[in-house]
Amino acid sequence: MSNNGFHVALVGATGAVGQQMLETLEEREFPIRELTLLSSARSAGKVILFKGKEVTVQEAKPESFEGVDIALFSAGGSISKQLAPEAVKRGAIVVDNTSAYRMDKEVPLVVPEVNKDDLNKHKGIIANPNCSTIQMVAALEPIRQSYGLKKVIVSTYQAVSGAGAQAIDEMYNQTQAILDGKEFAPEVLPVGGDKKHYQIAFNAIPQIDKFEENGFTFEEMKMINETKKIMNMPELSVAATCVRLPVETGHSESVYFEVDTQGLSAADIKNKLTDAPGVVLEDNPAEQVYPMPAHCVGKKEVFVGRVRKDLDEDTGFHMWVVSDNLIKGAAWNSVQIAETLIEMELVKEK
Amino acid sequence: MSNNGFHVALVGATGAVGQQMLETLEEREFPIRELTLLSSARSAGKVILFKGKEVTVQEAKPESFEGVDIALFSAGGSISKQLAPEAVKRGAIVVDNTSAYRMDKEVPLVVPEVNKDDLNKHKGIIANPNCSTIQMVAALEPIRQSYGLKKVIVSTYQAVSGAGAQAIDEMYNQTQAILDGKEFAPEVLPVGGDKKHYQIAFNAIPQIDKFEENGFTFEEMKMINETKKIMNMPELSVAATCVRLPVETGHSESVYFEVDTQGLSAADIKNKLTDAPGVVLEDNPAEQVYPMPAHCVGKKEVFVGRVRKDLDEDTGFHMWVVSDNLIKGAAWNSVQIAETLIEMELVKEK
Repeated sequence: MSNNGFHVALVGATGAVGQQMLETLEEREFPIRELTLLSSARSAGKVILFKGKEVTVQEAKPESFEGVDIALFSAGGSISKQLAPEAVKRGAIVVDNTSAYRMDKEVPLVVPEVNKDDLNKHKGIIANPNCSTIQMVAALEPIRQSYGLKKVIVSTYQAVSGAGAQAIDEMYNQTQAILDGKEFAPEVLPVGGDKKHYQIAFNAIPQIDKFEENGFTFEEMKMINETKKIMNMPELSVAATCVRLPVETGHSESVYFEVDTQGLSAADIKNKLTDAPGVVLEDNPAEQVYPMPAHCVGKKEVFVGRVRKDLDEDTGFHMWVVSDNLIKGAAWNSVQIAETLIEMELVKEK
Repeated sequence: MSNNGFHVALVGATGAVGQQMLETLEEREFPIRELTLLSSARSAGKVILFKGKEVTVQEAKPESFEGVDIALFSAGGSISKQLAPEAVKRGAIVVDNTSAYRMDKEVPLVVPEVNKDDLNKHKGIIANPNCSTIQMVAALEPIRQSYGLKKVIVSTYQAVSGAGAQAIDEMYNQTQAILDGKEFAPEVLPVGGDKKHYQIAFNAIPQIDKFEENGFTFEEMKMINETKKIMNMPELSVAATCVRLPVETGHSESVYFEVDTQGLSAADIKNKLTDAPGVVLEDNPAEQVYPMPAHCVGKKEVFVGRVRKDLDEDTGFHMWVVSDNLIKGAAWNSVQIAETLIEMELVKEK
């Protein structure tokens, strides 16, 4: 903390993403004058170290946001619905990492590499997209900028940390039980609070979040709708199949896409990815170089490999996109939005 | 064994698929007059129980096939290249479960539910397709029969047992090492004998088999080329991305496909899958019913769920296809080919 900088509040400070946000704020030397850590009543009173200083977590209330410049929310949609407007009312700018406001027409949904200009239209709240959407649009944007984009079909390979700490514990406990030949009863995945629970260890579950009437899951519809909104392309054709894997952290995506430009090669696509902000091209089949979740953990970038031209469709390409779902998929994208707001002078120190 | 029936030889009797073939022959009460179990010199001498009787495994040699009616091969491509013609020369009909003859124009590549009529054209050798291809075409065929088929894009979620017993051991040993916080050195996956090896436990590896010049892997090209051949549709547009997961047995596939018929609903597709031979529709999102690898192990059928109409493309649909890669993907499809040969009177007892 210093005499200059911003009064930052973090709602959901004790959660997995909240912890990752604190690490990211520290690592980025985010200009913080004062730090307010907020949580539910249950977690209030906990003491958290930030830059070597003890900060006591307080219960989040409307008054908690008095004097706050930037409020980062990551404590579930209902808390955001309830308290984000209170923060805005008190002059804070909110970066919300829940699904509460993502599809709200008044709320910019931002991945800085893709649509930071949308921040100019904010009315107090900015939404952080779903983890699986962020990494995909970050990889698609440099391609779209040069060659246009018509169609996207994605199949995901998602890590359990996206479903929270309980899901991680369940995966490891189940795994050990199976190795020991012991019984176990799934209780968390695929969706905490849903009717049925299934084994995640040594399995693949084609359900993330609940089902909509159309047969797609909410997670799949998030990827579809958020991609169109972030890229400002309501006409873009997007389809998603979302699958949970026994991987702790790191979402992978098999992405097929069609561009607007004829006659391109895989090399043309790779060239655009080489220089793209926030993207690292890891693509050398001869040396077995391609991204994998086990290699992306703890990193901020979106890793892309296996870029191939479709063998039948001249404008069609395939790629494999991997990123740490807790970092670029959540904590880092939120902090990056806050940094971009400062850069664009959309938030000022009080 | 009985006085009636066929003289069956099994090459690769001591391998994982060979074992599964023996179980399947027993379970199906395959009409066997005499059973010859063959292997490399290294495994010769082993004694295997079949229907309660001890059978000694012999080293496979050209002479081993004297008097054999049906020879099932599952001991690697080079053994098939060397010995399948010797078996044919001696009057046997060969069902080969390696990639040696799959793309040979003289050799039918058969999934009985799809193209059993191709068996009529055989010249002694019939090829069993790649595991990941079999389950996909079995699910696509009933749809194609009614509505045509234009395009297929598949992303796979493949089990380690497809890479053999060493890969299974590696996955479990690595998993235990990670749970114990111990070091480990990957030695088998993604491809035994390739330059680099990667962690499979709690990871996803986007490489199955080696890479071709075009950036696709051999596994991906197998799915592409074999699908066209089995369906007898050289013009069909097929693309594949193949990924290895920490799952012991059961391949899953996220399949996008376009039919020739306009205006269909997901219900139309599901109706065709309901009555399809060898296919079980498991599709009830409201009750969280969908196929998963952990539920398919030991079963002969191909399980299909998550059937949805694409939200943009009128002729486009998505589905999730799961099957036991050692059974329908290998042992059962081979035995089923042999049963179909008998049924079609293409093989006679000597």
